[in-house]
Amino acid sequence: MVSMSRPLAGLQVFECASFVAGPSGGMTLAQLGADVIRIDPIGGASDYERWPVAPSGTSFYWTSLNKGKRSVAVNLRAPEGRELVVALVTAPGPDRGILVDNVVGRPWMSHEALSARRPDLIHVRVQGYADGRPAVDYTVNAEVGIPFITGPGDDAAPVNHVVPAWDLVTGLSVSTAVLGAVIDRARGGNGVFVEIALADVALACVTNLGWLSEVDSRGQNRPRHGNYVYGSFGVDFACSDAERVMIVALTEGQWDALRRVTGTVDVFQALEKALSADLDREADRYRLRETIAAILRPWFLARTFAEVRQELDAARVLWGHYQQMSEVVAQHHSGAYPVLAAVELPDHTPAITARTPMRWNGGYGEPGVAPVLGRETAEVLAEVLGLTDAEIGRLEQSNIIDSAQ
Amino acid sequence: MVSMSRPLAGLQVFECASFVAGPSGGMTLAQLGADVIRIDPIGGASDYERWPVAPSGTSFYWTSLNKGKRSVAVNLRAPEGRELVVALVTAPGPDRGILVDNVVGRPWMSHEALSARRPDLIHVRVQGYADGRPAVDYTVNAEVGIPFITGPGDDAAPVNHVVPAWDLVTGLSVSTAVLGAVIDRARGGNGVFVEIALADVALACVTNLGWLSEVDSRGQNRPRHGNYVYGSFGVDFACSDAERVMIVALTEGQWDALRRVTGTVDVFQALEKALSADLDREADRYRLRETIAAILRPWFLARTFAEVRQELDAARVLWGHYQQMSEVVAQHHSGAYPVLAAVELPDHTPAITARTPMRWNGGYGEPGVAPVLGRETAEVLAEVLGLTDAEIGRLEQSNIIDSAQ
Repeated sequence: MVSMSRPLAGLQVFECASFVAGPSGGMTLAQLGADVIRIDPIGGASDYERWPVAPSGTSFYWTSLNKGKRSVAVNLRAPEGRELVVALVTAPGPDRGILVDNVVGRPWMSHEALSARRPDLIHVRVQGYADGRPAVDYTVNAEVGIPFITGPGDDAAPVNHVVPAWDLVTGLSVSTAVLGAVIDRARGGNGVFVEIALADVALACVTNLGWLSEVDSRGQNRPRHGNYVYGSFGVDFACSDAERVMIVALTEGQWDALRRVTGTVDVFQALEKALSADLDREADRYRLRETIAAILRPWFLARTFAEVRQELDAARVLWGHYQQMSEVVAQHHSGAYPVLAAVELPDHTPAITARTPMRWNGGYGEPGVAPVLGRETAEVLAEVLGLTDAEIGRLEQSNIIDSAQ
Repeated sequence: MVSMSRPLAGLQVFECASFVAGPSGGMTLAQLGADVIRIDPIGGASDYERWPVAPSGTSFYWTSLNKGKRSVAVNLRAPEGRELVVALVTAPGPDRGILVDNVVGRPWMSHEALSARRPDLIHVRVQGYADGRPAVDYTVNAEVGIPFITGPGDDAAPVNHVVPAWDLVTGLSVSTAVLGAVIDRARGGNGVFVEIALADVALACVTNLGWLSEVDSRGQNRPRHGNYVYGSFGVDFACSDAERVMIVALTEGQWDALRRVTGTVDVFQALEKALSADLDREADRYRLRETIAAILRPWFLARTFAEVRQELDAARVLWGHYQQMSEVVAQHHSGAYPVLAAVELPDHTPAITARTPMRWNGGYGEPGVAPVLGRETAEVLAEVLGLTDAEIGRLEQSNIIDSAQ
């Protein structure tokens, strides 16, 4: 059964990438069983100490996004170090020759240079803009217009959201691209250079939701709606104890459940008549969202969260509880989330880690072991390049590698 | 060269899924060349008219997320319609037997029932919660604590973000899972049932960023920061003409570029001395973010956006322009975004569509043709099940299928 959740066992992927997108793509492949080997500069790349960090200084971010991978640390400024990297990445073997990177401006790691050594190389590169200029989640998000439609309606200033959504989507685009290329190569195709720019991902997603077409068609921007769901009915309500719930009625069934549990069937029937509306239609629920919310609000305010929860669940209303992350952590400690696991980082800091959310035949699989920078340097050089202990010792001595011994 | 951007050509995938996650996963596979065939109930599923919609009533959302797919419309309440669906999904052939769905509570489409017909079926199912209960992006987002750390710092109320981030990440998890399963099956593995719950995706992502570990380690929630980047330096600035820019300094190089261009090298040097800080360190830039922003603000306010843009670019500062979506649309019309394309929907409504952001050997590939509900019903039934024109005519006559003729 273990192999069931490791469909990629046998594939070997090298990763030279920092920040969220590339590493989360590699982590996904590792959690599905691939042997993902991260190559870092000695001392770590620029995200090695990135926040959030533990009191010990260990980065929760870096250890989490790189779990399940082996780690090789090489002096990338030394010609001999560079040659090691190129040799690893282009090593022969049908399940090798796969590279994920976000490298900018290293001619020796260009696709041209690498594919000259291994023509069937699968090379997936994360970029900021497609022309190679840098960009990050925060900057591309500003550029696609999201901050002007986020947040309360009474302010003209942009509101940034905190989830690095484009990074995360790009990460899963990386895993998709790697696997698509593996399938193509196994069928007799060639190697490939797949480039994925964060700015393109953000633009494509916003377009795929129909948002740009709508603005173009209306000739004006979508209004800002605070916590209301756009184009349907959904908004937050406070309970009598100040706990809040998010209520959503996208489908007719969800809307029906909501008005039944709140005892407002007749109210909305009369309202539909008075306003010539049909609230079974999503568009009308959207148009009358503030009226609907005003009619529903007293029901929530008259009940504690515990009461609201019980009644909504019994009525099969679609809803969610606004939780602080500390509540999520408490739920985790009480065993509520099988997708999460408690681990110890290599420096013994306790941490919360995640398994892959893809349950393979019912199982979540193992989250993967937290990395130590350079820990598998010697092992990988011996295994992939056949270096001897003596050769590895010399490389270590001359600071070409650091095997964290 | 066309085949280069179609690495999945030959694979056939059936999709019975609504809303964002499943359909965007299928769209991704279609854009990489797979033959993705959507099966809908006659008249469309519950997202067929979903906002945003064109003045004609056509959903920009549905036509966009389902582009590049063939469409089959079947009466899912009739036993004969159900048998057609099961026969299609489990049809023999090494590149068939792949299903993406988000079905809840249809015993005849359970993995058990389907895999009894084709034991090596690859079946990827999107869920709300892992136990099958419904959940949507808005509800799971509330539950993982994001709305309490989004938005301006002076309000205790939750702020929802507008991007359906968890849906989009789940969509690319679907494409990753399908391709991982295809690789495994081609290597002699079995079929598989992969379940992916939206709630698990949100929890795993938040955990993978180290956010839960941090809250657990500190024993308190992360503060709300408005538009500041957490754990580093980044925030928005207004220019003299009220245009806004997002400025980010994650790396030492980015920080150096920022203080040079703003002429504040000496100011920050003196400040570091006065406050015993080292602003080359990300953690110190984060700690002193408000002081840094206050020192930089006048530089931006003294310049028009055009001036700011020119100087920041020349100095290689990492930045982005806050644009309204109408500006993005205008840029698109001026040809700024090769990842986007202008199309006409089947009802002749002009629309903006997106190619895949994965550039395969330098090319974006075609975005894919907009769907018409049921348009390929007859074609698919003939091709996959070998039905004759007479049989298809009878099914149409008895309202078991609708081929949009």
